[in-house]
Amino acid sequence: MLQLLEDEYRLLKNCFFPESATIIGASTDPLKFGGRALKFCLERGYKGRLYPVNARSDVVQGVPAHAHVADLPEAPDIAVIAVPAPLVRENLIAAGEKGCKVAIVYGAQFAEAGGNGQARQDELLRIARDRGMRMVGPNCMGAISLASGFVASFTSAPEHHDGSGWPEVGTVSVASQSGAVGIQVFAQLRDRGIGLANWISTGNQADVDVADAIAYFAGDAATRTIAAYMEDASRGLKLCQALELARQAKKPVVILKVGTTPEGGAAAQGHTASMYVEDRVVDDLFAQYGVLRAGSVNELIDLVAACEAGVVPSSPDVAAVSVSGGGAVMISDAAARLGLDLVDSPHDALTGLKEVNAFVIIRNPLDLSAPSMSNMAITGGHLKWGLERNQPTMIGYISHVPLVPRTRSEIMPQLLKFRDAHPEQLIAIAANLHPEDRSALVKTGVAVFDDPTVATESVAKLVRAGQAFGKRPHVPSAPDSVGDLPGPLASAGIIVVPETVVGDARAAVEMLDGPIVLKLSAPTLRHKTELGGVMTALASPESVRAAYADLSAKVARHRDSYPGLCITASRHVDGVEFLIGVRRDPHFGPLVLLGSGGVDCQVFDDLTCRKAPFGPSDAAAMVDAAMVSRKLAGWRGAAPANRAMLQAALVSLAAVAARLPSFEVNPVMVGPDALRAVDLVMGDDQ
Amino acid sequence: MLQLLEDEYRLLKNCFFPESATIIGASTDPLKFGGRALKFCLERGYKGRLYPVNARSDVVQGVPAHAHVADLPEAPDIAVIAVPAPLVRENLIAAGEKGCKVAIVYGAQFAEAGGNGQARQDELLRIARDRGMRMVGPNCMGAISLASGFVASFTSAPEHHDGSGWPEVGTVSVASQSGAVGIQVFAQLRDRGIGLANWISTGNQADVDVADAIAYFAGDAATRTIAAYMEDASRGLKLCQALELARQAKKPVVILKVGTTPEGGAAAQGHTASMYVEDRVVDDLFAQYGVLRAGSVNELIDLVAACEAGVVPSSPDVAAVSVSGGGAVMISDAAARLGLDLVDSPHDALTGLKEVNAFVIIRNPLDLSAPSMSNMAITGGHLKWGLERNQPTMIGYISHVPLVPRTRSEIMPQLLKFRDAHPEQLIAIAANLHPEDRSALVKTGVAVFDDPTVATESVAKLVRAGQAFGKRPHVPSAPDSVGDLPGPLASAGIIVVPETVVGDARAAVEMLDGPIVLKLSAPTLRHKTELGGVMTALASPESVRAAYADLSAKVARHRDSYPGLCITASRHVDGVEFLIGVRRDPHFGPLVLLGSGGVDCQVFDDLTCRKAPFGPSDAAAMVDAAMVSRKLAGWRGAAPANRAMLQAALVSLAAVAARLPSFEVNPVMVGPDALRAVDLVMGDDQ
Repeated sequence: MLQLLEDEYRLLKNCFFPESATIIGASTDPLKFGGRALKFCLERGYKGRLYPVNARSDVVQGVPAHAHVADLPEAPDIAVIAVPAPLVRENLIAAGEKGCKVAIVYGAQFAEAGGNGQARQDELLRIARDRGMRMVGPNCMGAISLASGFVASFTSAPEHHDGSGWPEVGTVSVASQSGAVGIQVFAQLRDRGIGLANWISTGNQADVDVADAIAYFAGDAATRTIAAYMEDASRGLKLCQALELARQAKKPVVILKVGTTPEGGAAAQGHTASMYVEDRVVDDLFAQYGVLRAGSVNELIDLVAACEAGVVPSSPDVAAVSVSGGGAVMISDAAARLGLDLVDSPHDALTGLKEVNAFVIIRNPLDLSAPSMSNMAITGGHLKWGLERNQPTMIGYISHVPLVPRTRSEIMPQLLKFRDAHPEQLIAIAANLHPEDRSALVKTGVAVFDDPTVATESVAKLVRAGQAFGKRPHVPSAPDSVGDLPGPLASAGIIVVPETVVGDARAAVEMLDGPIVLKLSAPTLRHKTELGGVMTALASPESVRAAYADLSAKVARHRDSYPGLCITASRHVDGVEFLIGVRRDPHFGPLVLLGSGGVDCQVFDDLTCRKAPFGPSDAAAMVDAAMVSRKLAGWRGAAPANRAMLQAALVSLAAVAARLPSFEVNPVMVGPDALRAVDLVMGDDQ
Repeated sequence: MLQLLEDEYRLLKNCFFPESATIIGASTDPLKFGGRALKFCLERGYKGRLYPVNARSDVVQGVPAHAHVADLPEAPDIAVIAVPAPLVRENLIAAGEKGCKVAIVYGAQFAEAGGNGQARQDELLRIARDRGMRMVGPNCMGAISLASGFVASFTSAPEHHDGSGWPEVGTVSVASQSGAVGIQVFAQLRDRGIGLANWISTGNQADVDVADAIAYFAGDAATRTIAAYMEDASRGLKLCQALELARQAKKPVVILKVGTTPEGGAAAQGHTASMYVEDRVVDDLFAQYGVLRAGSVNELIDLVAACEAGVVPSSPDVAAVSVSGGGAVMISDAAARLGLDLVDSPHDALTGLKEVNAFVIIRNPLDLSAPSMSNMAITGGHLKWGLERNQPTMIGYISHVPLVPRTRSEIMPQLLKFRDAHPEQLIAIAANLHPEDRSALVKTGVAVFDDPTVATESVAKLVRAGQAFGKRPHVPSAPDSVGDLPGPLASAGIIVVPETVVGDARAAVEMLDGPIVLKLSAPTLRHKTELGGVMTALASPESVRAAYADLSAKVARHRDSYPGLCITASRHVDGVEFLIGVRRDPHFGPLVLLGSGGVDCQVFDDLTCRKAPFGPSDAAAMVDAAMVSRKLAGWRGAAPANRAMLQAALVSLAAVAARLPSFEVNPVMVGPDALRAVDLVMGDDQ
């Protein structure tokens, strides 16, 4: 589990804001692999000192050049190694010897190519580390800063078909493991009118990875929103640390994490030598840190659009206005599905609406109905009415109204004033817009979407980030000594029901003090229900004796298959069956698990986790996420179970999880006044 | 439950291909509500006979006009009633008296407005019915046929900002309950370069609804793909009949059904007076008929793009090619999630790939790696290689390659030849494209997307439609006499375990012939587990006597709360616990249900249904859909249960479901060689 070290990720500043840079292999041809970075730096007006290195020319694209890095008059902050793969090694050594702080290595055919590619990549990493230099790549597309004008990339994206290949300078910073996907994000943000601060492609991630970039962007003054594409989450501890930095800086992080299936994981392995990490863990930890998770490139762009409005509400309350009943339904559906609250307006606020528009359907979303497509005083006025509800968020759906010349000219001036008049609100508009209008609206700080469902979903995910921002970092007050299991369970309020081996029926009957359970037990019998070997709720001496006789017959029958097979007795306990556990995850460290008890956690995929330690709000989120929790309120006549005790137990276990081995208690019976562990199984790390 | 009548939906031909039409309230101003339809018909070159009706002008927009419908020289096929709401009634009567076959009513302020709006709408319906005329609306945006040039709508969408407001003439027909959403679909198809055949907005659906339109489009020669937006699925029987017509015609149907949550359903009710229908039922029935269900307007457009390639594969096999490893991962993830098979190529097909491109990563998706962005001979060649695998579908991801001038000019000519060279394959390309290039590619019959995840998901949903197309209509051979329950259960192979009331322990012991179950039973005790009143697997006289004693004590304790409380005995059965049932659904008619037994169907939302009757493939799909089916293969040492018997039971029940009352058997124990019903509860329709 790699740790994030502050000194190290701060060095990434040199990828975006270097005071000096050398481009090794700088070509006189600005369209060549080695020529583009220099061309782009000149085009974007980079103000630092540029040192092209070219063995054959004294001047490259008008800039004085040197034959070798060693000849440079100073140690540049960054070296861009734009030479073919076989020449990378010697040039990386030279850059390190010169004292460069960071090197970017474009070259491919390393770990991703198989064979001895991994060994050659490991050697590059050693070369960089030995010289105190950080390395981006190999097999990467470099870094781009629109904020500084420093562009160390060979991408062709800026040669856009209509000449406007650069996005606006803005506040989104992008980290992408894949160059091609990263550039697609670059192009789609540009075409959406959303401005970019910094961009980095991390490729094979021998050293610098997406987590480093997120950590750097969390402290970068030019960045407001962080967007990332990742295939590999196996350096999970680093990733969590980076997400925590971003969370504390209150910068929303949008991540498209792919390789969500074992099949996709296999494809990623062939590509950037990534490791498959169980996707449900990734999903749960993203929820814990408030990451806005995207399921596609398109969704990543939409979520960034939501973040870039610059307001991150922590309340789910929304006022919505729709020109169409259909839009109102779609907004309502998405809001209900993702937990936004369409707040009712007080009655006096509604006075007068019908006078302006006899067709209006008064609810939230307010439905403008018929006049919406023709009367822009009404359409704009009702949107303004929605803003004046002073809810933290306003969602407006205006369909194709801004595409029709007459209505366009009437509605756009009204929309463009919204942000100034309501600087504290998140304003999301779903509409079909002319690209110029869309850019103009985005510039004012309005989040613009073309689909009301997408608009509402994006807002809902942003609100979850806002809620995560509100959590205080959880520093548990764990005791000095934690002790061995089951001690920590008892401290968490989970009583382990003692089991006694009973050698005859009489011994079992003597245990009666309330109903008991008799079970078959053996070291190799992991799941005791397998042999029909569990008899519950035995309340009378007769029933205990009868059950004992039945089980004895089974012992005789199965003793050869299960050495040590015996009968145990324990107190019978009622309650809702949960699984509670701790996993020492190889990627993320100690996780606390909660799910359905018995086999249901697997059959119904009902299992959730959080990284330990955590506080009450994460414990509550876990209980909400487990489907079996629906039984806590009392189900078909059962007594309500104690949700508060369950949440407290999770927080308590999380406080000491780092000092525990992996284990699962399954089932834990959550009752009205106690949590009782019926079976405790130690994990494989013992 | 409204039925679809062939004579009736065939009349909709007059909405799109009338030989003559009157526009009542036709305005001399082509931009007014009443003036647009005439303007549009003239603009689109409609060839039929047009009769504007205007009380004050003899000529309207250059067309001779009449003062009243009664004065027309013939009975027009269709009347467009473009007058304000208060004048609708008298004009609808006049159109009916004249002999029009269909009337379109734009006017709002009917059922959707509340008050006596419903009564006024009911009156319109009576007027139309009494005169044998079908009615579209009220509160609708009319109908548009690009195929014929007949446009009966007041939409402003054709006044697009850059003048190109009409889509191409094509083969997609759209039915939308909401005018505004329908017009957004119209505009987005246009902007995507996808051609339109017919379009209709059904509004309040007093008479004609989306199901009628789907049924009509199923038989319409101009239509290849049907797209629909609906808020109301309460006329479920009609809808299923329409979907079956489309399925038999092998025309894919893409539906955005909203009101998926009770909250969204409430919003729909205020809008078009729609009724909330349980969304899981809609979802299951859409699966049964092979509907491509969209979750947003954007997804509807993407799914239509997939359908419009004109090839509907019934096999999940796919060859994929990606310029980027990232794209390969995203395609692999979506394929695995939605059941597409990325088929391995035979070894000899791979020979030579590395010679052309040393960087290629050989798998499916084929990953072109580094040369993909610069060498278009390689990029195009590898895509061609993918097509030549002769899989039913090829998915290619080429990122922003076609946006960069040099690579654009090299790759586009290659892409444009794909369809002609491979007419039988579904070709899906994910790329950032210039709008002109996108239109050109779409015209050749290539499905174009900008996102590899979206491309793969859309293909997967289309394949499901193709699989549904392959099902034969299921006509069950049900017996003449079905008889009362539990008879039909026995015919379906479900043995109802008999329960006997036992008055004393001795009677219970006499039932021993293998293990038995003792239970508490009472008419008001719906779920017998509530009182801890179920003792299972009692195998010996001693255990039976002990259990009886325990239950007797409970009878004494609870007899006052549950009148008639007694103890019953039945044979103990093992197996996987399912719920099987029949529901006489008020919207869709007889449904067969399958889910988890006990309370799990509710706790884990594990319940699926199909409309009866159905055949083995739907039964198999139901078993696949129920999560509890994972236990059928044998779970933690349990014997495998009999999946084939379960499927056969579903088909058998489905054959007679129309003649059964609603009931649930819960649990049905599915064992290795039998299905045994432990508890049968009759539904509320008894």
